[in-house]
Amino acid sequence: MDIKAYMQSLGISARAAGRVMARSDSGVKNKALLAIAGALDEDRALLASANGRDMDNGRSNDLDAALLDRLELTPARIDGMIEGLRQVAALADPVGEVTAMNYRPSGIQVGKMRVPLGVIGIIYESRPNVTVEAASLCLKSGNAAILRGGSESIHSNQAIAGCIRKGLAAAGLPDTAVQVVETTDRGAVGELVTLSDYVDVIVPRGGKGLIERISREATIPVIKHLDGVCHVYIDDKADLEKAFNIAFNAKTHRYGVCNAMETLLVAEGVAEAVLPRLAAAYAEMGVEMRGCEQSRAIIAASKQACSAASEDDWLAEYLAPILAIRVVADMDAAMDHIEKYSSRHTEAIVTEDYTRGRRFLNEVDSSSVMINASTRFADGFEYGLGAEIGISTDKIHARGPVGLEGLTSQKYIVLGDGHIRE
Amino acid sequence: MDIKAYMQSLGISARAAGRVMARSDSGVKNKALLAIAGALDEDRALLASANGRDMDNGRSNDLDAALLDRLELTPARIDGMIEGLRQVAALADPVGEVTAMNYRPSGIQVGKMRVPLGVIGIIYESRPNVTVEAASLCLKSGNAAILRGGSESIHSNQAIAGCIRKGLAAAGLPDTAVQVVETTDRGAVGELVTLSDYVDVIVPRGGKGLIERISREATIPVIKHLDGVCHVYIDDKADLEKAFNIAFNAKTHRYGVCNAMETLLVAEGVAEAVLPRLAAAYAEMGVEMRGCEQSRAIIAASKQACSAASEDDWLAEYLAPILAIRVVADMDAAMDHIEKYSSRHTEAIVTEDYTRGRRFLNEVDSSSVMINASTRFADGFEYGLGAEIGISTDKIHARGPVGLEGLTSQKYIVLGDGHIRE
Repeated sequence: MDIKAYMQSLGISARAAGRVMARSDSGVKNKALLAIAGALDEDRALLASANGRDMDNGRSNDLDAALLDRLELTPARIDGMIEGLRQVAALADPVGEVTAMNYRPSGIQVGKMRVPLGVIGIIYESRPNVTVEAASLCLKSGNAAILRGGSESIHSNQAIAGCIRKGLAAAGLPDTAVQVVETTDRGAVGELVTLSDYVDVIVPRGGKGLIERISREATIPVIKHLDGVCHVYIDDKADLEKAFNIAFNAKTHRYGVCNAMETLLVAEGVAEAVLPRLAAAYAEMGVEMRGCEQSRAIIAASKQACSAASEDDWLAEYLAPILAIRVVADMDAAMDHIEKYSSRHTEAIVTEDYTRGRRFLNEVDSSSVMINASTRFADGFEYGLGAEIGISTDKIHARGPVGLEGLTSQKYIVLGDGHIRE
Repeated sequence: MDIKAYMQSLGISARAAGRVMARSDSGVKNKALLAIAGALDEDRALLASANGRDMDNGRSNDLDAALLDRLELTPARIDGMIEGLRQVAALADPVGEVTAMNYRPSGIQVGKMRVPLGVIGIIYESRPNVTVEAASLCLKSGNAAILRGGSESIHSNQAIAGCIRKGLAAAGLPDTAVQVVETTDRGAVGELVTLSDYVDVIVPRGGKGLIERISREATIPVIKHLDGVCHVYIDDKADLEKAFNIAFNAKTHRYGVCNAMETLLVAEGVAEAVLPRLAAAYAEMGVEMRGCEQSRAIIAASKQACSAASEDDWLAEYLAPILAIRVVADMDAAMDHIEKYSSRHTEAIVTEDYTRGRRFLNEVDSSSVMINASTRFADGFEYGLGAEIGISTDKIHARGPVGLEGLTSQKYIVLGDGHIRE
């Protein structure tokens, strides 16, 4: 198989389908989404058998338990995909929205109209349900999509692709509006990220290695998500009950997620009042603590274990029940720590002080900045986007959780009545 | 000189200055802009002598007349730079604007806050006044800037840089907030576009060759402006008086600009009614016409010269008194032509038909789409942006004229009262 020619042919079909999608109205797009949901429901047996092949291959290839778990398409996960499609169908259509339409002194009327980006390339790893999530967001936002899933889920993804094609056909849309790469050839990724004539943006979903490789090779803009090294800073003007709840929730609500707190910063003035209770709660949850000298002394005095944190700990995205803890002099020291070590994903301050809260909100340069709330809220659903294609740690185009709007752009529109430039 | 180390040192200083700029309030930023204006006014003699050196070198190096003209800093151009600074000072500050602040079912309040991008790298060619325009937009939007002008304007740019430093100092801002590269070493561009730790976005301003080279080499996002192959389509439901005025203005108001019409498309039904009058007017202005067979026949019958257009003419950005003309069957044929040949900068339809106007506006995928107005309006000032750093032909981040807003991003802000994720 000539992988270059194959990927180019997908690009050409996607570009043509993207044009049809861009002018398809909301009703047609929603009809397709619901028809895909219907096809998934009808084809449960087919999906289960395709997924079974992937699971068997995975076991033969000694995939670890976590990967196998992600790979499995249980009936509940199929229900989840169907429900996700219905939710995306229920969202407002972002395409065509006209804003800021104003008259100018010359007499022309100028505004902005929201438009699809065109063709989205999505590269992801093992979870086959991403195929449906990604396809639904691209379709709703009037784009075509080329999806490249992990090789370990190839049969599941192809079965899902069949359902998507059925749904598109039922709504009278081109079945090339969503194309799932049919080969496990690793060269497909390299080709996809350089198809600059046919693909407008690449969204990688996966581990840091994948995203770094794609950013390096891509000649197309990439909406990327690197680390989530998130901080909670407990200020000495904090309500200590809120501080305890937020610091506990941000770490222990879920460990393997990008918006979990990885480093806790505590103002010197309240460290002795808040750290012993927190340390006991973390210890009870089995969270390993790694602290600066001052925090270790306080935690040791309260009979909990806390090893010495190294420079690497301040930079670590553990994605695990491990927490770095540092006592800082004040909010400025906390913001300096964040400036130096944060991955600029999400940071929260706990304080009752108006001026400090306002300064933290204004001055901390991360994609989400919070006052008196758990970092775990940094999420497209929690923010009301309805769904997310990822969380961007970039500053350009889209920052933070990316929903339908991040898959669109805005063009200028001008209405005149024969106006010319004098 | 170690160009790599030098550019990196600029990057480090810019990053630090960017942090100060990001938290500087509007009053301080405006004070700096007005102080720069004052310094330019005081240092006119110095500017003239530095510019004189560049002009002498340019003449010795046989620069052509157009380049020498762009290079010259006349008193009127210095007035223009001063006036530009005052206008930017008068614009609303985009930084800190909070939008879409809403409560979510969880009880948290979520919104977006506009923030500077950080450090902007700008690479431009001969015009030294770009140094002031670019610096003023970066400062007002709370960013630091690294400016790399053409080697032929190095002395003028350094003299302007001195005025900018004075103005920054007068407002108590770091004089590294705007750094003008002090070497003409061509390696500086290659270094600047790969300083991914210190520079957040690159804005190239110049010819296609420069922009293509930068896009190829950059490891940082680029806000780029490629061709302006703009179209006017005269529909058979057009008011022919408006059609004449717009088609004449879009071509002849200025030739060397990206928003000038390069191809005129005319519906078959009105070609005989509108082309003879237009051809006579173009001929009077010395505009060379290159047409399809049908348009040539009509223009020849009215005793004007029109050579045969080749495929290259449909793709050409002439930036000159040359116009490609094509008769098309209807609006769909016009949109097909635009789809195939346009650079997606600006297209206009002239029509009185509601449905066709609406379809053209919705379906044409260009950064500006107009009804009954001259393409010459596609401009940051005409659109009310106050100033522009360029016109983006990209779809990602900023599309069309880019003003202060294009130099910013939005972060999410979350206000809670001790909220945790359940």
